[in-house]
Amino acid sequence: MDYVSVKEGETDLVVPSSFVPKKRDPVFYNPHMELSRDVGVAVARLTKPVTYCDALSGSGARGIRVAKEAGAKVTLIDLNPVAIELARKNAVENGVEVEAIHDNCNTVLSSRKFDFVDIDPFGPPVRYLDAAMSAVRSQGVLGVAATDTSALCGTYPGACQRKYDATPLRCDCFNEVGLRILLGYVARAALRFSYGMTPLFSHVTRHYMRLYARVDRAGGAVKESRKNVNYFVYRFSDLDRRFVTLNELAEGDFKGYNVAGPLWTGPYSDVDFTLRLADELAQPQYSKGKVASEIARLVSEEQGVAVPYFNLHKLCETKAASPPRMQFVFDELKRRGFLASRTHMEPLGIRTNAPVKEITGLIG
Amino acid sequence: MDYVSVKEGETDLVVPSSFVPKKRDPVFYNPHMELSRDVGVAVARLTKPVTYCDALSGSGARGIRVAKEAGAKVTLIDLNPVAIELARKNAVENGVEVEAIHDNCNTVLSSRKFDFVDIDPFGPPVRYLDAAMSAVRSQGVLGVAATDTSALCGTYPGACQRKYDATPLRCDCFNEVGLRILLGYVARAALRFSYGMTPLFSHVTRHYMRLYARVDRAGGAVKESRKNVNYFVYRFSDLDRRFVTLNELAEGDFKGYNVAGPLWTGPYSDVDFTLRLADELAQPQYSKGKVASEIARLVSEEQGVAVPYFNLHKLCETKAASPPRMQFVFDELKRRGFLASRTHMEPLGIRTNAPVKEITGLIG
Repeated sequence: MDYVSVKEGETDLVVPSSFVPKKRDPVFYNPHMELSRDVGVAVARLTKPVTYCDALSGSGARGIRVAKEAGAKVTLIDLNPVAIELARKNAVENGVEVEAIHDNCNTVLSSRKFDFVDIDPFGPPVRYLDAAMSAVRSQGVLGVAATDTSALCGTYPGACQRKYDATPLRCDCFNEVGLRILLGYVARAALRFSYGMTPLFSHVTRHYMRLYARVDRAGGAVKESRKNVNYFVYRFSDLDRRFVTLNELAEGDFKGYNVAGPLWTGPYSDVDFTLRLADELAQPQYSKGKVASEIARLVSEEQGVAVPYFNLHKLCETKAASPPRMQFVFDELKRRGFLASRTHMEPLGIRTNAPVKEITGLIG
Repeated sequence: MDYVSVKEGETDLVVPSSFVPKKRDPVFYNPHMELSRDVGVAVARLTKPVTYCDALSGSGARGIRVAKEAGAKVTLIDLNPVAIELARKNAVENGVEVEAIHDNCNTVLSSRKFDFVDIDPFGPPVRYLDAAMSAVRSQGVLGVAATDTSALCGTYPGACQRKYDATPLRCDCFNEVGLRILLGYVARAALRFSYGMTPLFSHVTRHYMRLYARVDRAGGAVKESRKNVNYFVYRFSDLDRRFVTLNELAEGDFKGYNVAGPLWTGPYSDVDFTLRLADELAQPQYSKGKVASEIARLVSEEQGVAVPYFNLHKLCETKAASPPRMQFVFDELKRRGFLASRTHMEPLGIRTNAPVKEITGLIG
């Protein structure tokens, strides 16, 4: 295998030269994840963990950056001996000391404690989460990614039910439902370990979903977490939608609706933290900082409305009308006293607390 | 600490003399669990695992009996060094070779494979199940106990929601709902690891619930498992009840009903296996075999009806009537063409496929 040098943030990394990851490549480094790692480093700089575990480290890009750029005491774990060897070399090259362990991450996580645990798998994170929960300290931070977006977004509902113990929905806001299923899954795993979960920052891209959340053993946090895991009902004929509790689902009349969940129905990011994150990412050392900072700023605006976004074109299809300009819809909704914002999840998305009838009233 | 010798099945064990377990006792041996261990040994003799892991072994009573009486290659794990030392001595005394590991069981389970994994905790099993799933081979057997029956049965609904990610119900069949929540939880954990789960034998007592289930990676088993995790609706005014899917819950009108679940709605024991288990337990070497065999025989009869049992006295309370004789109710229901049996879960329990109106029609 050939290697090349790349620079990410303030860190120099030796990585396999075949940038497009192939199944048989023994060491995994994905250049498309640079934005994700920029965000991860920025989150670590803001949350200041003393100990940080990159539990599926590959050649160590994320963990070594956190050691160098956020000053944490970093542990890297990977089952691939070639990856761990390369990670050790990369650490030395960057003048940072890291602990690099060649083992199954669940074995290590089951017997250790960290302030920050990051789970960055290729595929779903579910099989690592219980071990991660046992390893993260109360008031610590958990970073979780999922790359099986097709399961979470409802292309393969059976796979989502099996892995995430939740029903997805291929609707106009499919990726928000997917992100909320992922958040809900993490919250439910946290509750097994007597932790409440509070999202700090979450975002979706075409290829992965990502969340950073604080876990806390305090009774208030646990209670709040439990309150935020519920269900989603959705009607395809007019795109009406709402979050409901299990009891509301039973008591209400939802004939003609589809059900998704259980999923997270609270804010998927903390506004205050996300604004600080946007400022941090605007610093010049982040290679993808400009884009990432813009995403964070938009995410902070989105938290005012709890209802999943509407896709303008899908709304127009229900009335067989041609779509108006986005700005017109935003202006009109605000003029009528509703909240309305764009969403980082979809260029045609409208996040609003207006009932669906109000929005379709503006169309055609 | 003082020790005494006891004989269980064909195995001689040295155990702490303070039989009533206290929190500060360093080695755990519970004489009230002898029936549970008789059943466990019988299940092992019928399923013939080559490798068996007693993952929370205490002083080794269960695992050493399985080594001696079922001939399996046994691994014992306990975090308590005194317990493991005693387990080693007990193995030598009984002339069996066992592997006794002093460690966190999740650490060991994450990196090993076994044909049979038994999780026998003091409290809930949930934090061990993901590790157990990663350790049990396809077509292997999982034994799982829970002693936090007050959470599963709905005395502490918040604790059940937190730990088992399910809503319990303090109704007339509270312990069946609890057992089905436990089974449902194990099935959902199995699905995370691409396993379907088929219960072999489950039973409830006042102090614990127990299940033995086969896990299988085959597509058919996975699909069947998913179909069997659903919800339970229950009306306190007339004790009407039924299992419903998530979609039925949304589409139906269940105003005035309470909802429990998700829970296992399939048979909670395999009739064929349970009858063989009853025969096995009737052998003279089992100290509690007679009682255990009777329970197994009753459990096998119960599997004909999928609806949770009715409590005759609670039914009578809804009509402010005095209760008829149990036998009269069974005879009348059968005469009208319904199935009806007793249940091992409750002396006043009636397991029947008759609608609640048919049963209350026989009262008062």
